Amino acid sequence: MNKTPGAELERRITCFQSLLQAQALDGAFILQNADLFYFTGTIQQGVLYLPAAGAPLYMVRKEFGRAREESALENIVPIRGFRDLPRCLADFGLSPPEQAGMELDVVPVVLYQRLCANFPGCAMTDVSPLIREVRAVKSAYEIRALRAAAEMVEGIFQKAKTVIRSGRTDLEVAAELECEARRLGHQGITRMRGFNSEIFMGQFSSGADAGIPSSADTPLGGRGVNPYVGRGSGWKRIAAGEPIVFDFTGTADGYLSDMTRMFCIGGIDEDLRRAYDDMVAVQQLMKETARPGRKWGEIYEICCRLAAGQGHGGRFMGAPGAQVSFIGHGIGLEIDEYPFIARGFMDQELKKNMVFAFEPKVVFPGRGAVGIENTFRVTDGGVEALTFSDESLVVI
Amino acid sequence: MNKTPGAELERRITCFQSLLQAQALDGAFILQNADLFYFTGTIQQGVLYLPAAGAPLYMVRKEFGRAREESALENIVPIRGFRDLPRCLADFGLSPPEQAGMELDVVPVVLYQRLCANFPGCAMTDVSPLIREVRAVKSAYEIRALRAAAEMVEGIFQKAKTVIRSGRTDLEVAAELECEARRLGHQGITRMRGFNSEIFMGQFSSGADAGIPSSADTPLGGRGVNPYVGRGSGWKRIAAGEPIVFDFTGTADGYLSDMTRMFCIGGIDEDLRRAYDDMVAVQQLMKETARPGRKWGEIYEICCRLAAGQGHGGRFMGAPGAQVSFIGHGIGLEIDEYPFIARGFMDQELKKNMVFAFEPKVVFPGRGAVGIENTFRVTDGGVEALTFSDESLVVI
Repeated sequence: MNKTPGAELERRITCFQSLLQAQALDGAFILQNADLFYFTGTIQQGVLYLPAAGAPLYMVRKEFGRAREESALENIVPIRGFRDLPRCLADFGLSPPEQAGMELDVVPVVLYQRLCANFPGCAMTDVSPLIREVRAVKSAYEIRALRAAAEMVEGIFQKAKTVIRSGRTDLEVAAELECEARRLGHQGITRMRGFNSEIFMGQFSSGADAGIPSSADTPLGGRGVNPYVGRGSGWKRIAAGEPIVFDFTGTADGYLSDMTRMFCIGGIDEDLRRAYDDMVAVQQLMKETARPGRKWGEIYEICCRLAAGQGHGGRFMGAPGAQVSFIGHGIGLEIDEYPFIARGFMDQELKKNMVFAFEPKVVFPGRGAVGIENTFRVTDGGVEALTFSDESLVVI
Repeated sequence: MNKTPGAELERRITCFQSLLQAQALDGAFILQNADLFYFTGTIQQGVLYLPAAGAPLYMVRKEFGRAREESALENIVPIRGFRDLPRCLADFGLSPPEQAGMELDVVPVVLYQRLCANFPGCAMTDVSPLIREVRAVKSAYEIRALRAAAEMVEGIFQKAKTVIRSGRTDLEVAAELECEARRLGHQGITRMRGFNSEIFMGQFSSGADAGIPSSADTPLGGRGVNPYVGRGSGWKRIAAGEPIVFDFTGTADGYLSDMTRMFCIGGIDEDLRRAYDDMVAVQQLMKETARPGRKWGEIYEICCRLAAGQGHGGRFMGAPGAQVSFIGHGIGLEIDEYPFIARGFMDQELKKNMVFAFEPKVVFPGRGAVGIENTFRVTDGGVEALTFSDESLVVI
């Protein structure tokens, strides 16, 4: 078991506390699983109270023993429910907050009301943008995990070369890739923050199926196994001459890598191959553009202009009419973190050690999708790819 | 693609509307993915407005085309965001509600506030208990799907007989079982409603690992791959003489089956084998007790008394000190539906065609866990098991 070091937790907490202070908040109540892990090193049912200054207090309903074992935090106490919170705070000399933060982007209304009832008169503010801001910039510890996650996705990619065969369904191949991922230690459960947002371990789609639009905020969709999971791999059989999309995550200590590579059996039409080269060129332009200080939205606009100039305007980042308004997404413990390389976002700048997946893709309805994706770290003067698998179109 | 029939949607909607009317609500806004699927047959980003009487209106942001294709509802319109809702309602002759329902158990605060801003003066009530009430009683259409999901879990169970071997890690075996599940068409993404609640496709744990308590509201825990997913299969190697727990879901058209069976290599100690027989006896008592009209909590108490009489009081339904307060959970599109065969719940009665998983289990810390689980349908005079795999302890 890799335990998040105490010094690493302290760095994260101090950084978040400075943002709380800047907003004149007395503290924050943290309830969501990824945020709990980020600030405590474990995910146990309960509430983490982070005062604007001083030591945090983790109040755990279940499982107290594992919280003690897995978290490097000092102050961990058992509770039976929210009604115990005020007394626990008092026991540790913490005044009940008058202005507090919560993750109002993810905490359901009923739970919010139940917690608030224990702190009458306390005004609650959404601090999810502050949490996102802290989590966006990765430490050396986190970057090591992200590199390990990139190793895993290389392993899954190598496996793909051996299991893609004409006549197999996308689902059959996905099953074998997922199996390899799990053998390599993939955590299985892969987290996305947005309401109703879910991802599985990856997506494997051949030919036209990859370009079928779906409800997901992703450039590619897929028919899926059934309308209850209406995207990703389904029952389509792989055929020669189609573009085949491999889009997978690797994981290490909770951290995700995200990578897309292209396969085909025999070959693909010249215009599709050219489109793939075009997407590699969009990635190259991003590499030349992105650096600390660059606006997120500016990178998006610059790359969109190139794609439009290449003639892909109507099919860039999704099927015509179902295009998404981003090319890149921050990645770490969740797959939809800051920064967003997306439309708008002209006030937010890249910072050193932000990490994001960049995935220029085009959809040719009825024929398929092509594109590339790597996970990048912002360096002093540009970006460094953390995923490292060979970028050539793999011809089987 | 199996499309939910229009008559099936109509039955569900009419049933829910009668509950809205009884609460004097003008209508309900439905946003969550499982509920959207239940009432529309598809899951597209957007809002379903269900007036207390008359035809529902599905307002879809993404993906409109798939909503039209997958849903048998008549009134489906594209929107760009929540601000379009009042105009859409007006276009269909629907008055803006003054008393409306929402799924406040799952909708995040920020999203709730954003929607409410478009209906100033409208009072919002949590209608999740009403939705749960409707969804708890399954139709013939749903029971067919649940039976197909039981067929799938039998297939995964048969596979387990061929892949459990001494020296393999739990994770390696889980990888192969998940692979088989996907080959059989498992949807992968498996939904649980509670905040922060997640499940993967199943759990496979050998020996002591199965009994390690976790944050999850489940009798068994597991170390897991890492603290970010601190439960389920991990790196423990299977050894002879241990109880080995196979707890998997099958899926069909979104519906879940849930089943637990026991394996061992060579054999297990006599007291563990006796405990397994005891859990089968608890299941037998439930079968003799459960029928329409029985209180959920009454069945729980009766079964707990038997387990205590068997000498398992301190280890029934979890490791000592980490016991959960339920033995069964309703199951359908989500794994935590009504009814709860749980402590309390002395006012709610079983109804014909409610479906629940019943999973009496005991934990012997440091040695492992034993138990059984099947998915049951409430019949006119009792219950019928939908999962049907052989219940003998499998000795490998």
